[in-house]
Amino acid sequence: MKVIEKTAEISACSRELHLRGEAIGLVPTMGFLHDGHLSLIRESKRITGKTAVSIFVNPAQFGPKEDYHRYPRDIEGDAKKCRETEVDLLFLPSVEDIYPEGHRTYVDVEGLNDKLCGRSRPKHFRGVATIVTKLFNIIMPDKAFFGQKDYQQAMIIKRLATDLNFGVDIIVMPTIREADGLAMSSRNSYLNSNERVAARILYRSLMLAEDMIRSGEVTSGEVRAKMEGLIAGEGSSKIEYISISDPGNLEDIETIAGDVLVAIAVWIGKTRLIDNIIIKGDKR
Amino acid sequence: MKVIEKTAEISACSRELHLRGEAIGLVPTMGFLHDGHLSLIRESKRITGKTAVSIFVNPAQFGPKEDYHRYPRDIEGDAKKCRETEVDLLFLPSVEDIYPEGHRTYVDVEGLNDKLCGRSRPKHFRGVATIVTKLFNIIMPDKAFFGQKDYQQAMIIKRLATDLNFGVDIIVMPTIREADGLAMSSRNSYLNSNERVAARILYRSLMLAEDMIRSGEVTSGEVRAKMEGLIAGEGSSKIEYISISDPGNLEDIETIAGDVLVAIAVWIGKTRLIDNIIIKGDKR
Repeated sequence: MKVIEKTAEISACSRELHLRGEAIGLVPTMGFLHDGHLSLIRESKRITGKTAVSIFVNPAQFGPKEDYHRYPRDIEGDAKKCRETEVDLLFLPSVEDIYPEGHRTYVDVEGLNDKLCGRSRPKHFRGVATIVTKLFNIIMPDKAFFGQKDYQQAMIIKRLATDLNFGVDIIVMPTIREADGLAMSSRNSYLNSNERVAARILYRSLMLAEDMIRSGEVTSGEVRAKMEGLIAGEGSSKIEYISISDPGNLEDIETIAGDVLVAIAVWIGKTRLIDNIIIKGDKR
Repeated sequence: MKVIEKTAEISACSRELHLRGEAIGLVPTMGFLHDGHLSLIRESKRITGKTAVSIFVNPAQFGPKEDYHRYPRDIEGDAKKCRETEVDLLFLPSVEDIYPEGHRTYVDVEGLNDKLCGRSRPKHFRGVATIVTKLFNIIMPDKAFFGQKDYQQAMIIKRLATDLNFGVDIIVMPTIREADGLAMSSRNSYLNSNERVAARILYRSLMLAEDMIRSGEVTSGEVRAKMEGLIAGEGSSKIEYISISDPGNLEDIETIAGDVLVAIAVWIGKTRLIDNIIIKGDKR
């Protein structure tokens, strides 16, 4: 595994791989790798010739009061996991290399960046779209891999790749969960043991929604109310949003008919967690 | 000369050229080609292996009350000029191919897009930055060529290319002028014969500024006042802006010291014209 810190160096490396006819898969991450990330790496290895993993805690996607500085970091552990999964290129750029003095160009995917998580994190997806644009240009991958846990992010990146004519296939892989259903996330490391128990309420509330919708409930308001009731019963939790929307455009759905995205953001103590499920219309 | 209308087709063509080791120069235009464009094409031919010219009147860079629909078009004449200057690839995409249904991703170069022309044309440079990003991804040029007449545009594109890690050299070529000094522009075709005479006032006012500054005038306000007086004497003209600024960041300069950009936008009847000169500090 080649470990590369400089953008110019990984660009040269990618160019060489392309000239040799290799296809490159990119797994962009913020590090503190868990089984969710590893499932993306494995899929990249399965369907592309060379796999690059980037680890970069991207300041542009954090708000001023968010957890940029305390976001968990473990480069050594991450490198070990990358080596074990036989990653070819590990890219570890510095903030100065990615955002040198004077940087002022940003990418916006309008109308998708202001819903769900975008409501409370107004510049978050601008930061995501910008770093992904940069990484696509730096590494020039053929395919890039993202997790469904960040459903809105994945949608935005798909849109961006199409709209800006990147010839990059965006592959979205299923959410990987702990045994009790909690979606894997680097931020789970913030939870103390009581909070860890409380955090199960996210997936439980999604399962409640799925049960109701499969049993024929068509009124989003009813589903949301029941989810709210369940989560409210968990003392240390605070709902940021419960959204029932069209998985194609994230527009709110009032009366459930076809496919539906149920997405939530819940604070467990001082930790903000998100999760979502898609319930297919044709399976009801 | 290959004439190509589809983005997928020109991308495939570019990829093939790159695999053969050819460097590609791109001259992005909105057509109605004049000697300014041809100077860019000639420079591209001089320093790159293959030259691509794109002609696309980009709706995203026009405001709702601007001249998108009446912008001059002459594809046949343009193709002839491209053939004569031995362009290799002429790219003529449709609006539907560039902005298919659902397009919603835009690129902003903040802090440069809101000055000078950006004041009266608030989304203009967002449209420019977006189409250039798309063309860079579609054609994957090694170098791209722009005219100094659109100085702010050239600056924004340079910044964009750096900030989004495009490995594209941005080459800015001098403004090409008519015998009486009028900067060449496709929009000059809007002028009737009286207006064509009146339009000389732009370059004359820039020459006045240059004389004053070379003679030791250091107060921008004085220079602007004299330019205003000169232009006001030309009945059919209306000043949109006269800007004396730092050519590095477009910030207004009050007291002139080093290099200085003098840029103007003036309406001649119903036609908005722009022009600029850079006066070097070390030559005074």
